[in-house]
Amino acid sequence: MVDGSPVRVPGDWAAHLASSILEAARVPSHHAQVTAEQLALADLRGVDTHGLMRLPNYIERMRRGELEPDVVPTVVTQTPGTATVDGRHGLGQVNSHFAMSLAVDKARDNGVAAVTVHSSSHFGAAAGYPMMATDRGCIGIATTNAWPLLPAVDGAARRVGNNPLAIAAPTRLGYPLVLDIAMSRVAAGNLRIAAEGDNVIPSDWAFDKHGNPTTDARDALFGGGMLRAMADHKGFGLALMMDVLAGVLSGAGYGPSVTGLDEPGYVHVGHFFVALEVAAFMDLERFLDRVDDLAAHVHASPTREGVDRVLVPGELEAGITAERLRTGIPYRRDLYERLLALAAELGVAVEEPDRGSMGA
Amino acid sequence: MVDGSPVRVPGDWAAHLASSILEAARVPSHHAQVTAEQLALADLRGVDTHGLMRLPNYIERMRRGELEPDVVPTVVTQTPGTATVDGRHGLGQVNSHFAMSLAVDKARDNGVAAVTVHSSSHFGAAAGYPMMATDRGCIGIATTNAWPLLPAVDGAARRVGNNPLAIAAPTRLGYPLVLDIAMSRVAAGNLRIAAEGDNVIPSDWAFDKHGNPTTDARDALFGGGMLRAMADHKGFGLALMMDVLAGVLSGAGYGPSVTGLDEPGYVHVGHFFVALEVAAFMDLERFLDRVDDLAAHVHASPTREGVDRVLVPGELEAGITAERLRTGIPYRRDLYERLLALAAELGVAVEEPDRGSMGA
Repeated sequence: MVDGSPVRVPGDWAAHLASSILEAARVPSHHAQVTAEQLALADLRGVDTHGLMRLPNYIERMRRGELEPDVVPTVVTQTPGTATVDGRHGLGQVNSHFAMSLAVDKARDNGVAAVTVHSSSHFGAAAGYPMMATDRGCIGIATTNAWPLLPAVDGAARRVGNNPLAIAAPTRLGYPLVLDIAMSRVAAGNLRIAAEGDNVIPSDWAFDKHGNPTTDARDALFGGGMLRAMADHKGFGLALMMDVLAGVLSGAGYGPSVTGLDEPGYVHVGHFFVALEVAAFMDLERFLDRVDDLAAHVHASPTREGVDRVLVPGELEAGITAERLRTGIPYRRDLYERLLALAAELGVAVEEPDRGSMGA
Repeated sequence: MVDGSPVRVPGDWAAHLASSILEAARVPSHHAQVTAEQLALADLRGVDTHGLMRLPNYIERMRRGELEPDVVPTVVTQTPGTATVDGRHGLGQVNSHFAMSLAVDKARDNGVAAVTVHSSSHFGAAAGYPMMATDRGCIGIATTNAWPLLPAVDGAARRVGNNPLAIAAPTRLGYPLVLDIAMSRVAAGNLRIAAEGDNVIPSDWAFDKHGNPTTDARDALFGGGMLRAMADHKGFGLALMMDVLAGVLSGAGYGPSVTGLDEPGYVHVGHFFVALEVAAFMDLERFLDRVDDLAAHVHASPTREGVDRVLVPGELEAGITAERLRTGIPYRRDLYERLLALAAELGVAVEEPDRGSMGA
């Protein structure tokens, strides 16, 4: 096995590996499991940039005292429909799972609920939290802020994070409708791939430090440059309003006071979650009839020449999940080895993945 | 006055004209005023496509029995944090003003509230409703659905409306932060302007009926073509999720069952409003300190060469409002004359605008 082909492992093996590594780093068992499940879910859905590849950074930050492994998120204030949570600089996944669970509980009593979190950290992929809501008959909404990467329109400095917005709704399709979008034109990961290769990117992906378009990926990432917002003022405006909800309103850092994951200190990230109980608005079965009908109408669309069919939001990821549950998550070999090395360092005994269980 | 220069009139004169026309068309006085204020607000903010130019269509639809002038929006179901409203095929502005007022009232008791409306109609500019929330210490969110104009990604037929999302937050800047974005790459109005001129549009604005890029504005608008979504799958996904909230969840039409404003019958539009009471999450003064600080940080951004300063969402429109309050709303002469003719037809006595009051 010296080739560059990916290593395929079962999703539950990946989750167990992540959970074991986190527990070995002093994360309480239940919290380790919640975090591991969110990371593995991202990998299963094909959102590889937000899966287990994040784990080494989390562990490193715990070692440096920049991320608390064993704190418990705490409700600071609440009303029947709202809560504010202090994440106590713990894992974003733990805080977000707690906050979204609370939002759904409150929505089931109250019809709607909104929960903010401050003093949190990277929460992984946004989609995982609204998907928790759909399992319980709710529509879920989630956003977070992040370290600045986008300029204001016509600006020449990073001013706001590439703050995602995720919305999910229950269906009977076998998967929920899930939208999870960041506000940049292309993900920073695409620039990183270019930076490791020929370094050339299209001129509409990013800006240099003067706010002018650049085709130099390293310049954009490491030379004071910036990601270009999707749809320019629309993307910047959405990113800023997400910062108002997740950062300003939560009591977290916002704009420049959010720290990058490679910088020292707590990251001061905040989150914002909403749950809407469908049954407070409409009989759930009727809603499911209607949402499925909307999806069916999209699916019945004529297509551009050469295209088989069109998809609804979340369908692509649901297809990848089904395939990866069958054939395993394909980890890059260097990541796989890095995770095993991390496990070994922390004294975690790792069993070889049972590839037979994947049916591949 | 035979030239093509615009006619400048005071904002309150425009609102009074609109209100008088609506009353003459059997809209109750209070409802006429609410609607007129929303239309004039759009014109004051420079959103001319959603101002008084919409009035002739509304009146025409009332005449044809496709829009009810004198119905009262009715709460169908409610919980402490939610309500569903039947708009009874009345004016979208009336229904939306009612629903957002209710959402703010409920948010002030409950911290957060969400209100849906079905059987409504065109609500004008989305921004006006979350701006009602900021006047009362709340963050507001609004969306609506609309007749299909966008295809699914790689689709070759209209599947979803150009459904806007508006979010507003209170500040001490003299204006709220206001984001109001539709999901197309460019507004349909820009295609209409091209269609009336040389008919040529950039190839990334729209598709023909086969789902291929077109440079023919009329083809896109009237030949079965479609608007291109901003950021492609992101814009389509947001538009679809807005339809889930405003259409599916509200009990309104959705996707293809929403009717265009030039088509016969009720439009079956739905809306969705959220109000978040800031004080349920954080002392309002502290929030205002923080949101102003975020805005100050954006304003302090270095700029691209040739650019004086960068703006926060809503600032451009606030500047236009200040100028138009001083110098008047500049209506195109043909629109001005059309509105006067409409007033005359309905027997409305119109006083000449007092241009002295504009200080111009």
